[in-house]
Amino acid sequence: MTPEQKAEIEAARADPQPTLRAVSEGMEAHLYRAHEVLDHGFVRVIDYMGDDAAITQAARVSYGRGTKAVSNDEGLIRYLMRHWHSTPFEMCEIKLHVKLPVFVARQWIRHRTANVNEYSARYSILDREFYIPAEDDLAAQSVTNNQGRGEALTGEEAARVLDWLREDSTRAYDHYEAMISQEGQQGLARELARMNLPANIYTQWYWKVDLHNLFHFLRLRADAHAQMEIRVYAEAMCKIVADWVPLAYQAFEDYRLGGAQLSAKGVECVRRMLKGEEVTQETSGMSKGEWREFMGVVDA
Amino acid sequence: MTPEQKAEIEAARADPQPTLRAVSEGMEAHLYRAHEVLDHGFVRVIDYMGDDAAITQAARVSYGRGTKAVSNDEGLIRYLMRHWHSTPFEMCEIKLHVKLPVFVARQWIRHRTANVNEYSARYSILDREFYIPAEDDLAAQSVTNNQGRGEALTGEEAARVLDWLREDSTRAYDHYEAMISQEGQQGLARELARMNLPANIYTQWYWKVDLHNLFHFLRLRADAHAQMEIRVYAEAMCKIVADWVPLAYQAFEDYRLGGAQLSAKGVECVRRMLKGEEVTQETSGMSKGEWREFMGVVDA
Amino acid sequence: MTPEQKAEIEAARADPQPTLRAVSEGMEAHLYRAHEVLDHGFVRVIDYMGDDAAITQAARVSYGRGTKAVSNDEGLIRYLMRHWHSTPFEMCEIKLHVKLPVFVARQWIRHRTANVNEYSARYSILDREFYIPAEDDLAAQSVTNNQGRGEALTGEEAARVLDWLREDSTRAYDHYEAMISQEGQQGLARELARMNLPANIYTQWYWKVDLHNLFHFLRLRADAHAQMEIRVYAEAMCKIVADWVPLAYQAFEDYRLGGAQLSAKGVECVRRMLKGEEVTQETSGMSKGEWREFMGVVDA
Amino acid sequence: MTPEQKAEIEAARADPQPTLRAVSEGMEAHLYRAHEVLDHGFVRVIDYMGDDAAITQAARVSYGRGTKAVSNDEGLIRYLMRHWHSTPFEMCEIKLHVKLPVFVARQWIRHRTANVNEYSARYSILDREFYIPAEDDLAAQSVTNNQGRGEALTGEEAARVLDWLREDSTRAYDHYEAMISQEGQQGLARELARMNLPANIYTQWYWKVDLHNLFHFLRLRADAHAQMEIRVYAEAMCKIVADWVPLAYQAFEDYRLGGAQLSAKGVECVRRMLKGEEVTQETSGMSKGEWREFMGVVDA
Repeated sequence: MTPEQKAEIEAARADPQPTLRAVSEGMEAHLYRAHEVLDHGFVRVIDYMGDDAAITQAARVSYGRGTKAVSNDEGLIRYLMRHWHSTPFEMCEIKLHVKLPVFVARQWIRHRTANVNEYSARYSILDREFYIPAEDDLAAQSVTNNQGRGEALTGEEAARVLDWLREDSTRAYDHYEAMISQEGQQGLARELARMNLPANIYTQWYWKVDLHNLFHFLRLRADAHAQMEIRVYAEAMCKIVADWVPLAYQAFEDYRLGGAQLSAKGVECVRRMLKGEEVTQETSGMSKGEWREFMGVVDA
Repeated sequence: MTPEQKAEIEAARADPQPTLRAVSEGMEAHLYRAHEVLDHGFVRVIDYMGDDAAITQAARVSYGRGTKAVSNDEGLIRYLMRHWHSTPFEMCEIKLHVKLPVFVARQWIRHRTANVNEYSARYSILDREFYIPAEDDLAAQSVTNNQGRGEALTGEEAARVLDWLREDSTRAYDHYEAMISQEGQQGLARELARMNLPANIYTQWYWKVDLHNLFHFLRLRADAHAQMEIRVYAEAMCKIVADWVPLAYQAFEDYRLGGAQLSAKGVECVRRMLKGEEVTQETSGMSKGEWREFMGVVDA
Repeated sequence: MTPEQKAEIEAARADPQPTLRAVSEGMEAHLYRAHEVLDHGFVRVIDYMGDDAAITQAARVSYGRGTKAVSNDEGLIRYLMRHWHSTPFEMCEIKLHVKLPVFVARQWIRHRTANVNEYSARYSILDREFYIPAEDDLAAQSVTNNQGRGEALTGEEAARVLDWLREDSTRAYDHYEAMISQEGQQGLARELARMNLPANIYTQWYWKVDLHNLFHFLRLRADAHAQMEIRVYAEAMCKIVADWVPLAYQAFEDYRLGGAQLSAKGVECVRRMLKGEEVTQETSGMSKGEWREFMGVVDA
Repeated sequence: MTPEQKAEIEAARADPQPTLRAVSEGMEAHLYRAHEVLDHGFVRVIDYMGDDAAITQAARVSYGRGTKAVSNDEGLIRYLMRHWHSTPFEMCEIKLHVKLPVFVARQWIRHRTANVNEYSARYSILDREFYIPAEDDLAAQSVTNNQGRGEALTGEEAARVLDWLREDSTRAYDHYEAMISQEGQQGLARELARMNLPANIYTQWYWKVDLHNLFHFLRLRADAHAQMEIRVYAEAMCKIVADWVPLAYQAFEDYRLGGAQLSAKGVECVRRMLKGEEVTQETSGMSKGEWREFMGVVDA
């Protein structure tokens, strides 16, 4: 962040105003502040709507007197999460300002149930900022998993990769700048010149989403199988959400992030195993892949 | 509203808290208060996110330096509305508590891009409240329009209709109550008993929507062709939105509510007419229906 | 079905035409035919797009050469379902014609990711057809579950309920008809008269949805906790889907319908139990409700 | 297209099968065939659901007997389009296979109401194919419009731009290939290596959308203000849709593509002008920008 940007944030934080809306103390502390992610990225909360009580309030509208029997908000929120009631969580909303590499943005945007305003490279000139992985993150292709990573590269191979990433970014941006320059020339249209820029250039957007869909995003992207470069954004958001709606986040951690889905065959196997039967992949009815994943759940 | 409900609202309004978020003064005055609609319905604002400045702020993220040339927020918002830029308007969100007859709710829910928590008649017992039209609103079927209304019914016909609506509602609710009663009997499941209730019974829900989709709803439902019983809700919401985001609402009024869509043939006819040519339905290339609607736009 | 409707269906089925699109043999046998549900309802397939091979074809576009290593379509479809890959299933689409009571339609429409054209009671006159439960389905309110059903009502209580449902429907429709009649009177607007009709009247719609969202619908509505009157529609659709995309349906049955979700605490308990530890609700960290549901999964 | 791909397409077209579904003759002629766009891109129809008759059939379910008075399908489709009835058009669906540059894909994906399966550069290796504009398309930045194009570049400036686009693409791909190579080295993970590739590289996806949302896409992207590189895809699709649903496409052309939206002020000005009044920007109540656009509609 530049000193100018930091000053802007502090100015935005300097002037609280009275409101009659639900206020989340934990979230007010985050507002506008940048949580740094990767080498030049960040996540900032720009606005939010609702808190834990807004979730139970909506549930009580739906379920009426019945829900009043549930003694407290925590129990009700856990019940709603456990039973896949999605609409009460949709009553909370968050608006984030995110700066992220284009290849991460391309994965992110596949989650369609959100509102987005992205910086437009048709209208405006992109900044010279590129994601260059830290050496430890320069992972080899996994030898067992088509979409996974192995160990970090080392020695000359690592050095060569880093050099290329740096040099190609620099050259691409130099040419981008030269192509659009209007000093002594017409200047290529920005909407065309941008095509020369690689996918590690940073873009930024406002991203607004309700809590139910945010949880869905976080379940997939804070997962160990997600690409590291998007996972770190998801992890930064998890911390923010934990401060915003602590009860809902705790339920999410227990029932989604830390939970597991068993198939009908998996349920059957657990029952047989608990009755003392020795079950093997061969007698489980599962394929080798399924069995390996099943054992990862029950036998850790 | 019962005195108890009024007291609840005043209590909710009694305790402003500081926030760093964008605050709309006009909207704070509405928060929690009930705007009465029809005989027992209402619209209440429960929460909101953003204001006029949030729209231009999002646009400026997208369009970067280019938008800074536009001298002020009003001009930018009008530009965005005129050119169908929808995403900046999606950055504002509103959450309403609405009480409405079931047949109105059934029309309303066809707008899918919103979040809803409706009172559940599986869990809870519905109140004895039915919409009975005022005598002036007891309209006859239009003789020219399959879905329209004509003049109000009069005399015996009107009286008979009102009697039936009142008596059938009362009887249906009496039987509903008797069917679910557990005094001296098992009591029919609520999820079954509700099927005896007519479509003029009131239900309620929390409805949360972004400003772009709300404008789309209002354009269709505040229109003269919308059924009166949903239009009055749309009109109540129009007043709220005018106080919430006055610049956006003014642009919406000019470009959507008060505007008109011309077909390619319509554009061609306007051009010919402005050059002094006399154009008739026969020479317009339009069908009779299209021509009638076209003349309603240009010749009023 | 009237003889006229049956003749229409047979006429629609009489004239196969050549197509180059993917064809599902199982689905062709269903096209246009009515599967009867409840006393007057039905589900009919009007159109469909794709088959099992369309799912794997889309997956192979996404995952490229990697997916070719998976030896066959069945294994790939099971992998996609197990790992929550939703987009390949979105490549199949189905269009249904459904006739259903209004109170069922109101539950159904809460699933927003679908396209709907419903019969309009503003334009047209509804038919005199009401859902009257069979005696065995006249369930009492559950004494343990706010939204559940208990045993069937019996004796006088049952008789009285059935009489009321029948009589009130009949009277409401008689008055509806009399109110809109234009013989010797103006006739109340249809959009108003419909408000007198109870929620057990039948409506109908075209409902179009992709396979991923259909599976989501079926998981919730073919579940034992769904209201019986919507569950029977879900069950009729399950049979249709099983014929349309047999491999996908089998995976859905195993991983969704028959599977179970364990929380982090649930996973931990299963591991402890498999190591021989005796775990009780008190030592599980779960609430009583959670424990009861957990035992329902592992101990059946 | 390689000879192998052409053979695949011919094979897919060689074996028509009988179906009872609605068949569009015009669309069958397109199935699987590649419509070339830009230097290496294409659009291919993979599947479709429905035809013109499916639109009116759905409308007739909704509007019942009322719509039978409309003498023919063409009149009804025009009526539906003119009055913004969207749901009957949602009853048709199309699935396309598209190959397109990444910067075009990034614009395209902003339309969220569609299903997408994109080629994954995490799993698979991208091909060495880049969009290099034809010389005539190498437009300068517009001097009047932040997002527009001016005249084509010429001479040395054009030559230099083309050289850079070609050289930088080639070098970026060479390094991409070298980074992931596993000959004598570990090989960088594909999910990382892809970040070196510029936005003019081609990707491909399956894109499935309903006709209403496709029309919305085409209205924005076949417009003169859309970037040329996406407009050519929209134009290719327009031709396909014209063959698929000729009546709906004609109505779309008349009411959307060729039509114009007037604001309330614009309507007022047209009325005044038709009454013989001389209206200027100053007396119109419009800003200069609005007036210029208004004159573009009425005075061409």
